[in-house]
Amino acid sequence: MTTTSKTRPPLNGVDTPTLFATLDAVKANPELAKFQFRAANRWVSGTHNRSTIRAFFGAGQEDTSRTEDFSYDADHPAVLVGTGHGPTPVEFLLHAIAACLTAGVANVAAARGVALREVSSTVEGDIDLLGILGLSDQVRNGYQGIRVSFQISGDAPPEVLRGLIDQSRARSAVYDVLTNGVPVSVEVSTD
Amino acid sequence: MTTTSKTRPPLNGVDTPTLFATLDAVKANPELAKFQFRAANRWVSGTHNRSTIRAFFGAGQEDTSRTEDFSYDADHPAVLVGTGHGPTPVEFLLHAIAACLTAGVANVAAARGVALREVSSTVEGDIDLLGILGLSDQVRNGYQGIRVSFQISGDAPPEVLRGLIDQSRARSAVYDVLTNGVPVSVEVSTD
Repeated sequence: MTTTSKTRPPLNGVDTPTLFATLDAVKANPELAKFQFRAANRWVSGTHNRSTIRAFFGAGQEDTSRTEDFSYDADHPAVLVGTGHGPTPVEFLLHAIAACLTAGVANVAAARGVALREVSSTVEGDIDLLGILGLSDQVRNGYQGIRVSFQISGDAPPEVLRGLIDQSRARSAVYDVLTNGVPVSVEVSTD
Repeated sequence: MTTTSKTRPPLNGVDTPTLFATLDAVKANPELAKFQFRAANRWVSGTHNRSTIRAFFGAGQEDTSRTEDFSYDADHPAVLVGTGHGPTPVEFLLHAIAACLTAGVANVAAARGVALREVSSTVEGDIDLLGILGLSDQVRNGYQGIRVSFQISGDAPPEVLRGLIDQSRARSAVYDVLTNGVPVSVEVSTD
């Protein structure tokens, strides 16, 4: 017995029927797709600072499903004259790309009826600090390249499993931002 | 009595003398500037997954200063058919840009002899999910724009305080990556 994508049951912890219903709802009312995410950050001391994340706007309203702040410290390590109270800011970019691709794989697999057993990944980012240290004009400030390596297993042939990663990448918000860039404005208010 | 930048005392929680000594050491041996940061991610269920961050290479060796893993959950919220066990991957990008600019401000202020009282920021990212939902080819997958709003106070005139943010942005690794993009490769291994 085969199912069409619209009638697939929940799989991989994904509520597939609700996922398809959500797609239909947005198709009928594209305004629902407009989201705004937010973070707030406060300097602690030296390179140590802390962000909180909670509220966002989406699906036509302020979201209230997250009832507590998520809180994240960032810092530079000792070798960069920080105190190591958290990862460096650039390491959070590596988390973001792995997390985005992995969430997408789970959704795509559920939509395609592929049961996943394991999805794990490692991410490496190479950066030459001559840029941010102001010691070379020839070296960019950011990563020179990021490599994501996935290990995936599930009830499908290798080419189908690879196709899940391909489709997730093709629809990944973080992959798009990191590879194509995005306009970032910075405003300053002083007391 | 004025000090040259090389003899500035610690300020803002920044060990300024060590910061300048580090710059001198890297200038003398540019190989020390080559860093590799890393993250590892594992799928949990549905869109919920978890990254760990700890080891990195830099200053010519594997760093051992961070003796425990930093661990971060990511998930989609209920309205996007997730379980909200963590922020969305794209929200970590907002944390990363705020954290990077803020760490830079503290260092630049110390180098310039400006005592900071408070540095806080809010970040907003607008995204139209018609892209990642596959409902429009005209809409990008990622953010359409990111806005960072800083509030800064310290023992300096407003134009000097603004200059700290400007210099931090000019040397920010995350700002460079987000605005200019970076090559991201994705490899897949199947069982």
